[in-house]
Amino acid sequence: MGEAWDAGAIMRKLDQLAACTERPGGITRLFLTPAHGEAVHLVRGWMDQAGLQTMVDASGTLVGHMPGGPAGARRLILGSHIDTVRRAGRYDGCLGVVMGIALAARLRGAALPYALEIRAFGDEEGVRFPVTLTGAHAAAGNFDPAWLDSRDAEGIPLRAALQQFGCDPSALTAGQCTASGALAYLEIHIEQGPVLEAANLPVGVVTAINGATRWEISVRGRAGHAGTVPMAQRQDALAAACGMVLAVQRTALAHPGVVATVGRISASPGATNVIPGECIFTLDVRAPEDALRGIAEQEIFQAMANLADGSRTHLEVRPLHAAPAIACDRRLQSLLADAVGAAGWPVLHLPSGAGHDAMAMAALCPVGMLFVRCADGISHHPDESVTEADVAVALEVMVSALSTFDVDALA
Amino acid sequence: MGEAWDAGAIMRKLDQLAACTERPGGITRLFLTPAHGEAVHLVRGWMDQAGLQTMVDASGTLVGHMPGGPAGARRLILGSHIDTVRRAGRYDGCLGVVMGIALAARLRGAALPYALEIRAFGDEEGVRFPVTLTGAHAAAGNFDPAWLDSRDAEGIPLRAALQQFGCDPSALTAGQCTASGALAYLEIHIEQGPVLEAANLPVGVVTAINGATRWEISVRGRAGHAGTVPMAQRQDALAAACGMVLAVQRTALAHPGVVATVGRISASPGATNVIPGECIFTLDVRAPEDALRGIAEQEIFQAMANLADGSRTHLEVRPLHAAPAIACDRRLQSLLADAVGAAGWPVLHLPSGAGHDAMAMAALCPVGMLFVRCADGISHHPDESVTEADVAVALEVMVSALSTFDVDALA
Repeated sequence: MGEAWDAGAIMRKLDQLAACTERPGGITRLFLTPAHGEAVHLVRGWMDQAGLQTMVDASGTLVGHMPGGPAGARRLILGSHIDTVRRAGRYDGCLGVVMGIALAARLRGAALPYALEIRAFGDEEGVRFPVTLTGAHAAAGNFDPAWLDSRDAEGIPLRAALQQFGCDPSALTAGQCTASGALAYLEIHIEQGPVLEAANLPVGVVTAINGATRWEISVRGRAGHAGTVPMAQRQDALAAACGMVLAVQRTALAHPGVVATVGRISASPGATNVIPGECIFTLDVRAPEDALRGIAEQEIFQAMANLADGSRTHLEVRPLHAAPAIACDRRLQSLLADAVGAAGWPVLHLPSGAGHDAMAMAALCPVGMLFVRCADGISHHPDESVTEADVAVALEVMVSALSTFDVDALA
Repeated sequence: MGEAWDAGAIMRKLDQLAACTERPGGITRLFLTPAHGEAVHLVRGWMDQAGLQTMVDASGTLVGHMPGGPAGARRLILGSHIDTVRRAGRYDGCLGVVMGIALAARLRGAALPYALEIRAFGDEEGVRFPVTLTGAHAAAGNFDPAWLDSRDAEGIPLRAALQQFGCDPSALTAGQCTASGALAYLEIHIEQGPVLEAANLPVGVVTAINGATRWEISVRGRAGHAGTVPMAQRQDALAAACGMVLAVQRTALAHPGVVATVGRISASPGATNVIPGECIFTLDVRAPEDALRGIAEQEIFQAMANLADGSRTHLEVRPLHAAPAIACDRRLQSLLADAVGAAGWPVLHLPSGAGHDAMAMAALCPVGMLFVRCADGISHHPDESVTEADVAVALEVMVSALSTFDVDALA
């Protein structure tokens, strides 16, 4: 007899999974390491208990198929990842995988109009190799063979690491990992932010995975003696940059949904008694819609240009990174929202500020995400925490959603 | 026959002095080094040519007395320093010393109501030892014997370095360097700032050597994910600090004479995609009057406290350094101002943002300073530059001032 697969069981399994780590005393489980292999072994055992047919595909993704169902039925994929950052928490990614297995177990024997599939991706955090989401990209048919040559910090190519893990890179480049016939991808994930907690809600429906751009801004003024140059004659690069940082904050506040952050700053020459001649800072802008982000960025850069002019400093803006927003499918949002309502909770729609496997899966099929509240917005940290009560709500919501899923509505 | 001791001769001597350096290809002449010894030898030769009686006192200061004059006359001291920072320019300090000798030469044989004395201090920059202005403090009777135990970067105590230079530290601690009977101290110095250049004037009369305070400010907020924490829920330490930097600038601009500078800043954890949880920056405030500086500081810290409250961040202010303002004597300011006017130039009064030997000499007697324009405000750099024409004006002004000096008015 298997166990009940209730929220308590899910919490206990997450505790067990946390023991798969490269170093005891914390959780560090990078892609294709022995700790990742242990996790695959453990999770595969749970999939077996839940009655799933399991395999590890050529990208290192553990896949569990629910047998039976109508002939030729399309796949409804529940997934997330089991790799972690260094010194991680136990819920990021793993919650969605273990809940997927619990849902498969709960729905075992039910007459479902789709083929249920659970995926435990191995490479969402992108910590070990300079590529990321390789498992989900492979499932979506978008694995770039050039990625096989990327190397980890010890110089090991992804190709060799996959082979050592028992995977066949040639199958990967031949596209044999593609999850053809996919109907939809649903991902349950901890919020990694403070919005649900502030709203006093256990779960929320994700509207989009924010698009993000990163920039490096350089402001050049004129260094000078802090004692001898009068205020009106200064071209203080740091003072100009500080005006720009405030413009970033002001602009983001004026555009609900946009978040913009200056995380790094340096002034040079960097002495107490020298007026800064140069200041360099980073800018990170995210929004659930690319057009909205574009408008905010335009306002930010216009304000920066005005401030540079007004302070007789020279502005340079260098793009570092850009990723478009990925919208969650409106029909899947409705499905989840209805299930949240049916469970007796107000429905909060919110964007995801962080990236997820769903970003890559969106190229394959409609995607939807359910967020679960976490304590204090903390993630990527041992203090990461969710409550069993919230997991119970998420489980109830997902059982409801999967039971009422209308395949034809997505056709 | 000696040479003419005009501005051209002064410029040539400054070029010669620039060759006394620890390393060829630049000017680096730290206190009590062989390069300093060479400079003393060279300058002493010029003093001899100018008819001065010379000695090196126990603090390493080269002193030249003009013989003759009325019996029991008090000393009028012209001085500055011949040590330099690393990779220095050729005018900082040296201009005042060489001009002092030129003035002695020009006034040789004149019936002066004071005993003219030229001092070439050896320790104004404070680069080699963790003490500074030791020569001027010794002349003012304020040499602290504990300073003899301070050590340079190689562990050599000041006591040993003085002995190796041929000085007798016991004479120093016995107060035998004190310039008793001093009437006044006058120092000619390059401005080291851009004020005279902006005003299109060759010289200016110094009102005071600014008092200065330095602080380290720490702002603590709450680190968070740049993508997942909405703007309104953030406690961004850097954004709060940037408001404070602008308040510093605004406050200083609102109080003419005050200069305030944030020269260093750091945000931690310091990642592009993390909201800064802590920001540390320095604050340097200077003003010609301590009361004025106090008012500005109070306004700055009140604004910072308000900004910390408004941004739900925690503010900590740690004092690093404080030095009171030293006023230049009003009668000496008038003497110099009248001489500038007599030379046909508008009189600009300005404070000194940098420190000078006059700060220490002010404990002994009234002090006055004449600033000479330098190019672009640049100092402590090989590009430091003054023109022969400006030196000629300064020479004319000082000949006039020294010729009309009313001893009784200072009594």
